Amino acid sequence: MTTIDIDQTLLNQAKAAKAASRKMASLSTTVKNRALEGIAEALVKRQDEIIAANEQDIERARDAGLADAPLNRLKLTPEKIAGIASDVLTVSRLADPVGEVIDGWRLPNGLQVSRRRVPLGVLAAVFESRPNVTIDIAALTLKSGNACVLRGGSEAIRSNTVLARIAVDAETAAGVPEGALQFIESTDRARVGELLTLREYIDLVVPRGGAELIRFVAENARMPVLTGGVGVCHTYVDESADLDKAVAIAVNAKTRNWSICNALDTLIVHENAAPVFLPRIAAAWADKGVELRADERALAALGGVSNAVAAAPDDFGREFLAPVAAVRVVNSFDEALDHIAQYSTGHSDAIVTEDASNAKRFTDEVDTAVVYVNASTQFTDGAQFGLGAEIIDSTQKTVARGPVGLREITTYKWIVQGEGQTRP
Amino acid sequence: MTTIDIDQTLLNQAKAAKAASRKMASLSTTVKNRALEGIAEALVKRQDEIIAANEQDIERARDAGLADAPLNRLKLTPEKIAGIASDVLTVSRLADPVGEVIDGWRLPNGLQVSRRRVPLGVLAAVFESRPNVTIDIAALTLKSGNACVLRGGSEAIRSNTVLARIAVDAETAAGVPEGALQFIESTDRARVGELLTLREYIDLVVPRGGAELIRFVAENARMPVLTGGVGVCHTYVDESADLDKAVAIAVNAKTRNWSICNALDTLIVHENAAPVFLPRIAAAWADKGVELRADERALAALGGVSNAVAAAPDDFGREFLAPVAAVRVVNSFDEALDHIAQYSTGHSDAIVTEDASNAKRFTDEVDTAVVYVNASTQFTDGAQFGLGAEIIDSTQKTVARGPVGLREITTYKWIVQGEGQTRP
Repeated sequence: MTTIDIDQTLLNQAKAAKAASRKMASLSTTVKNRALEGIAEALVKRQDEIIAANEQDIERARDAGLADAPLNRLKLTPEKIAGIASDVLTVSRLADPVGEVIDGWRLPNGLQVSRRRVPLGVLAAVFESRPNVTIDIAALTLKSGNACVLRGGSEAIRSNTVLARIAVDAETAAGVPEGALQFIESTDRARVGELLTLREYIDLVVPRGGAELIRFVAENARMPVLTGGVGVCHTYVDESADLDKAVAIAVNAKTRNWSICNALDTLIVHENAAPVFLPRIAAAWADKGVELRADERALAALGGVSNAVAAAPDDFGREFLAPVAAVRVVNSFDEALDHIAQYSTGHSDAIVTEDASNAKRFTDEVDTAVVYVNASTQFTDGAQFGLGAEIIDSTQKTVARGPVGLREITTYKWIVQGEGQTRP
Repeated sequence: MTTIDIDQTLLNQAKAAKAASRKMASLSTTVKNRALEGIAEALVKRQDEIIAANEQDIERARDAGLADAPLNRLKLTPEKIAGIASDVLTVSRLADPVGEVIDGWRLPNGLQVSRRRVPLGVLAAVFESRPNVTIDIAALTLKSGNACVLRGGSEAIRSNTVLARIAVDAETAAGVPEGALQFIESTDRARVGELLTLREYIDLVVPRGGAELIRFVAENARMPVLTGGVGVCHTYVDESADLDKAVAIAVNAKTRNWSICNALDTLIVHENAAPVFLPRIAAAWADKGVELRADERALAALGGVSNAVAAAPDDFGREFLAPVAAVRVVNSFDEALDHIAQYSTGHSDAIVTEDASNAKRFTDEVDTAVVYVNASTQFTDGAQFGLGAEIIDSTQKTVARGPVGLREITTYKWIVQGEGQTRP
């Protein structure tokens, strides 16, 4: 293990967050909600300050030749700021996960054992250009009783610095312990590498951004990581499927928004459903501009429709994030299960079936964060699931799996209450 | 990130475990229990085979100059084998954690969402000389529906090989999927480093052994790690403590077994309790041969008792695993909380108090896996807590915290059942 020098300011920030986290653990819900309401209010009240800083970011990014799409993500308007403030108010209305008694019982010797939900401690987030993430993570960590250390992208540094200052001011005014929110103002890339070594002060690190950032964090972090966001998602149309449902689901899963991680990437069709279903879905997808990359048997069933081409081998297991879907015909349900086991990234996979026993086997055997029966994979989302908010869609099996809300960034402790018991 | 060559046999074993894990997830409790009963029976029936292999290990270890204590841990007798078999039967009687519905609800659009407990997949264990760990981990992973890859110490290779073979035979006879239990027969140290890179096939790695092994695994594993076993444990005697309870608890916490991780390391005493309490605990500990390493004020209150010496600064925050305790006097409850926050490893910490508000603050503010009020820290143990078994006492905040039973080596998946719903 190589040791690296840690920037002194960064180290002090991590230590301050850890110190604050002790007090955060018992901070009342009332104070947390007051702080959230204060942040929402201040965002609107101080929007000129935010927009002035944001305009500097935009100007520099434009000079540096940033493309229109990322420029748009970077840009803050009064409407966007009102939206961010409204999201903070939503978090203030969510139930506080801290203090929940998960389970508990009395032992024969009279000891009362219980498991109580508590904050993780300090959560670090490393994210890219969208400045709303600063407030988003600040709000979710605050409500869950965690201190946080935030590191945003350099393009948004001026916007993020102002947003973080507004959040800190509102938290302080509401009585949140000093130091609970740390924003890294240095844009030096070395800070990220250093941050990832601070295992003693940071309990969990969450990368939010592209595949490159996620890989860097996953490979270098010395503390637990929570990642997600990469989804090779399958929809399997069973022999027994209701084809109207199958068409509606496949159209929605692919085309409602093809640039998000829960979008359909591969359509698998049972050979007995293929002759009728494939021409129907090809026509429905043609209306939405979707290209089918079909295996040999699928291509035959499609009968030369204009939006289908022969699949390359690497089209299976590929996340398209585009109006493109790989299509495969299988001989049996088992072959579909094997295909999913081989290619799924464990994000979201669906079956369309009217056969109860196949539905049961699919939910039992497919090893994926969210398994769907007769529904679109596009539902995978914390807000859709009723969690009220979402930090990430995790494709991990530890820390949390699937949509990550407030509860999923907590841990528990065991509390044992006695009257002088000793162990024989 | 450096890439390393992976031994082909090891790679095949990891792949076989992963393949088996798919089937393990839906294996019935009946088959799992039949396999556990079969293992228990076969251990006794084939004990001559086990003991013959074990004698070869013992002979080689003795020739290599192994000390008596580790030789004893290595040695298997008919009594020890009967004990291992009995532990396996205990596991067969525990509730199966797989399939538990953790929570669930119906969304406004009619989708039925639930979170169901499922196995993690493949658990790898790296352990040292005690051969009972082979069967222990095999039984716990089997019951929790996980496949496993086991790597034991080289001193026990012959014993472990026979034990693993017996377990595999019994599992196969009961109908457990082939490949679910993989034992690494190579004793080459390189295999451990290679194993730790197999992130694609192994979902969790558990090191069981000394601090050196734990550190190596934590620093090199590319998959999540579950560690524990290091405990710097505090007992704080409050101003309001019932001193009879305090003496009983401190004696038990230090002397019932001082070589385990939940034993008392540091005794913290409020200044108003010190003049009466410290001489009493010194006398009680003197009977058990315990040495006190006392800070200045504690030393003064002890008034020259023969089993107290001045503490060195590094006696605080030290895990003694010996009949030695550091002792500190504090001015206030807050000073005790600060001391624990600075020095605890987050394993087990206790308060002895009759003051309800201090008891509440202690359980709220001490950030430790198991927090005790008026009880001995020696209770931290899966069996004591009623979990029926224990893989490890985790000092992590993610994966699991505190005693790890069957449930704690599972994860969950989200199941969403619909009737054709699509997302607007």
